[in-house]
Amino acid sequence: MTTQTTTVPAYAAPAAKAPLERTTIPRRAVGEHDVLIDIKYAGICHSDIHQARDGWGEGIFPMVPGHEIAGVVTEVGTGVTRFAVGDRVGVGCMVDSCRVCDNCKAGLQQYCTNGNVLTYNALDKNGEPTYGGYSTHIVVDEAFTVRIPDGLSLDVAAPLLCAGITTYSPLRHWNAGPGKKVAVVGLGGLGHMAVKIASALGAEVTVLSQSLRKKDDGLSLGAQHYYATSDDATFEALAGTFDLIVSTVSAPLPLDRFLGMLKTDGAMVNVGAPEEPVSLNLFSLIGGRRTLAGSGIGGIPETQEMLDFCAEHGLGAEIELIRADQINEAYERVLRSDVRYRFVIDTATI
Amino acid sequence: MTTQTTTVPAYAAPAAKAPLERTTIPRRAVGEHDVLIDIKYAGICHSDIHQARDGWGEGIFPMVPGHEIAGVVTEVGTGVTRFAVGDRVGVGCMVDSCRVCDNCKAGLQQYCTNGNVLTYNALDKNGEPTYGGYSTHIVVDEAFTVRIPDGLSLDVAAPLLCAGITTYSPLRHWNAGPGKKVAVVGLGGLGHMAVKIASALGAEVTVLSQSLRKKDDGLSLGAQHYYATSDDATFEALAGTFDLIVSTVSAPLPLDRFLGMLKTDGAMVNVGAPEEPVSLNLFSLIGGRRTLAGSGIGGIPETQEMLDFCAEHGLGAEIELIRADQINEAYERVLRSDVRYRFVIDTATI
Repeated sequence: MTTQTTTVPAYAAPAAKAPLERTTIPRRAVGEHDVLIDIKYAGICHSDIHQARDGWGEGIFPMVPGHEIAGVVTEVGTGVTRFAVGDRVGVGCMVDSCRVCDNCKAGLQQYCTNGNVLTYNALDKNGEPTYGGYSTHIVVDEAFTVRIPDGLSLDVAAPLLCAGITTYSPLRHWNAGPGKKVAVVGLGGLGHMAVKIASALGAEVTVLSQSLRKKDDGLSLGAQHYYATSDDATFEALAGTFDLIVSTVSAPLPLDRFLGMLKTDGAMVNVGAPEEPVSLNLFSLIGGRRTLAGSGIGGIPETQEMLDFCAEHGLGAEIELIRADQINEAYERVLRSDVRYRFVIDTATI
Repeated sequence: MTTQTTTVPAYAAPAAKAPLERTTIPRRAVGEHDVLIDIKYAGICHSDIHQARDGWGEGIFPMVPGHEIAGVVTEVGTGVTRFAVGDRVGVGCMVDSCRVCDNCKAGLQQYCTNGNVLTYNALDKNGEPTYGGYSTHIVVDEAFTVRIPDGLSLDVAAPLLCAGITTYSPLRHWNAGPGKKVAVVGLGGLGHMAVKIASALGAEVTVLSQSLRKKDDGLSLGAQHYYATSDDATFEALAGTFDLIVSTVSAPLPLDRFLGMLKTDGAMVNVGAPEEPVSLNLFSLIGGRRTLAGSGIGGIPETQEMLDFCAEHGLGAEIELIRADQINEAYERVLRSDVRYRFVIDTATI
């Protein structure tokens, strides 16, 4: 039984904008409701780079990124009821929340009104910084641990913990399914999962990408149509087409033009967003009673539902497995959109 | 039987920005499916002023504004089945639509994908300009004519044809009712009807107005709370409060601050809008899965439903009755927000 804080290897950014390097970090003792996870794989999310480089400010350094974590339980606290040693598990963007607000009680921990605890670059309830998945081990409350079904390999499951749930949640909430036309904006880490999931849900899927460079990929991932948004004709050809547009990009989009591609009562949901304000004409919403919305990751029950759905439909992420000493290089490639479609760190190499 | 075009008195803007003056206009012969309406009252909508002054460009002059029309049927075409001479009726913002698109078939003529025919400042299907309600008579297809229940006086019913339906429709679509907290932004012609209707639907209503100047009115119209948006403390006090915010104003609002007053899954619906683009940060939507939407007037079936609802609940507009020769003065007063809450023209004075 781990009754004391342990020290484990990790890759961390020692300061804002500094390259990540190998170090060691503390992990708390395994508490009554905790599980100790032997991390096998950790996905690299675009937001890891953003935070490691302190793009949003107020970063806590040293910072160990990583909120797409897949591993195996190696120890459980005395009060743990849902997991046992040997279980295949995942951890996503959150490791705790207030648990008492209406949203937490409804399983929407991502919208905890008292503020949830993010997996890294945050302060845990004990006041200590949280450290993410670029590490060999993590201690997490079982309430924020999900089960990875046997049908999913851990390496392709890791990215589901952020890229999967962030797209699954709005697709489900806005009823993507048979008879619905769904567009996915951007074919990156999130976008490629949105295409796979929307397609598995039975929707007719269109990719809206800047260029046609990844068209073959998009179609083989499950999209029926693929259009370049750099071509003005796209917006005319697709006017009034979609029930739902899910935007996964963080670049500012010409929203009025995108909203024009929605049907009456259609919704454009942003899961990616630029940091700077965007501009739109509200008449783009009034015509056709259209909706512009946002969605952030997903709650813990829905994350489990998503993993079960992905296992059932054989959906894992398309990944490129890397060694820990390739993280900094991978960051540069992500920034150049040179990844198909998610880098995953083999944490045995840390 | 009126088999020929007739000439009737009206008040028209002879050219953009020119004062309205008395004139005569043609009304088409009563066709098979038409009713001839003796107009009794016509409301003055803010958008009348905007169009008469050619604020949106491409105005058709001379222009007879008026899309809040209440009157009595004095003649019916041979094929008319739903109305008889003597019936009390209303006409709103539309007098025709394509009738074959999915939206028209669903009773959402306001979102006709082939373009509906507006009551004035538009071209009818016969290519002739449409002229609105600042007139003594109008000929309208029965399909775009609604019944004003006996319980409603025609003068207070007239504004319901735009101000009533424009607020009723989103309140119903976004489920305003018992247990829901609804905010109404702006206490003008639309806003005061939104307060009355939301309150009658059973919602807990808050008015968000620039100042507290009309607070007593707002509370007597049915609001439980009244806040000034010129006071920064309002946004903090009301953070995370509302299920639905209906904005009736055309001034650009600080959207991020307004969105912050929504609960998780709350919606801010714009029925008024500035012409220039607005700015918002999409993270205001991602946090709490919030929605920014728009809604335009309402369909014909829902307009009838709204009139029946208003009659049942004794809801008419608060009006100031004016003579036709006071229209230009009334316009100036509307622009100064000096009206509580709708000017209605007694068309007997034309």
